[in-house]
Amino acid sequence: MKNPPALEQLIDSLRCLPGVGPKSAQRMAYYLLQRDRNGAGALAEALETALEVVDHCKLCNTFSEQPICPLCAADSRDKNLLCVVEMPTDLLMLENTHAYNGMYFVLMGRLSPLDGIGPKEIHLDKLIKRAQDGLINEVILATNYTVEGEATAHYISELLKVRGIKTSRIARGMPMGGEIEYVDSGTLAQAMMERRNVA
Amino acid sequence: MKNPPALEQLIDSLRCLPGVGPKSAQRMAYYLLQRDRNGAGALAEALETALEVVDHCKLCNTFSEQPICPLCAADSRDKNLLCVVEMPTDLLMLENTHAYNGMYFVLMGRLSPLDGIGPKEIHLDKLIKRAQDGLINEVILATNYTVEGEATAHYISELLKVRGIKTSRIARGMPMGGEIEYVDSGTLAQAMMERRNVA
Repeated sequence: MKNPPALEQLIDSLRCLPGVGPKSAQRMAYYLLQRDRNGAGALAEALETALEVVDHCKLCNTFSEQPICPLCAADSRDKNLLCVVEMPTDLLMLENTHAYNGMYFVLMGRLSPLDGIGPKEIHLDKLIKRAQDGLINEVILATNYTVEGEATAHYISELLKVRGIKTSRIARGMPMGGEIEYVDSGTLAQAMMERRNVA
Repeated sequence: MKNPPALEQLIDSLRCLPGVGPKSAQRMAYYLLQRDRNGAGALAEALETALEVVDHCKLCNTFSEQPICPLCAADSRDKNLLCVVEMPTDLLMLENTHAYNGMYFVLMGRLSPLDGIGPKEIHLDKLIKRAQDGLINEVILATNYTVEGEATAHYISELLKVRGIKTSRIARGMPMGGEIEYVDSGTLAQAMMERRNVA
């Protein structure tokens, strides 16, 4: 005894979503068919539109509806700086700080050999070509301070060093509003080691 | 600074799924566009097909691609028994026991006033009409033994009683393989109260 075929097919298809197993897929399918048919229709349409129009920017590799994304195409940006981030969300976060006006490169991931994500999957050939456009004179590595993010930054810096490109890494240290009593010891140790002279 | 419009639209649409908030919707959208475009296309198609062909059986109210579902249409079933369950999964579970050969009625939910689910949302008018088809002589209430399931069973039994329809409730007691030492006290108390004579 099973659900009708079209329903089984829907349950099966929902499992392509990350973090969705058989039980939640079934719950989602029941919910959509019973309580939110409009939402389900809109979702089908949004999926099709996104698949059709969203691709990667030829320069910075982020999601874009144009071959060159608006940020890469903007005249006002500093073409000499290239900031490397893991995901488009990281780019959006940095943009929201208004602290950086250079260009970006989005890896769309981080090195993670156990998940089968190597240099090819994070588009390092594209990054190296991008960094050698003749205008970039510093590559800022803004990957996460996780084990994978650190390994990715290290790997990229080695690749760029042999090509004579200057690289830097965003600073580590105490977060804004952080209290020494409550900050973790790793962060505190880094903040101590990377202390700066007071001007 | 935002994602491209078609991507934002997709993130927004994914939030119609139960249990999916803004962060997971974004993660799902990124994942689909970057790593599983085929899966996303298949999902869009499955959604559209399901919306088109899946409706509710006119008799038992479960999901069905035909006006009358295969189970309700089967000649071999006992037309005198009607088993009321909350969800299609409950029907499937009962069918897998091979312990029941009667008809079903699927409420598609349970009474839950706080979530705005009242008698109308669980199709009680349809159930009452179904139970009075002249063939049914016993309605078995197989809602869950949760607070809402119990309330739903009680409410339905009251409705059927005034119409002179015999109702019963599936038994409570020790689960198969259950050890008295480890079973919860509520279950044990019920098993004691509802003890049966040994034949």
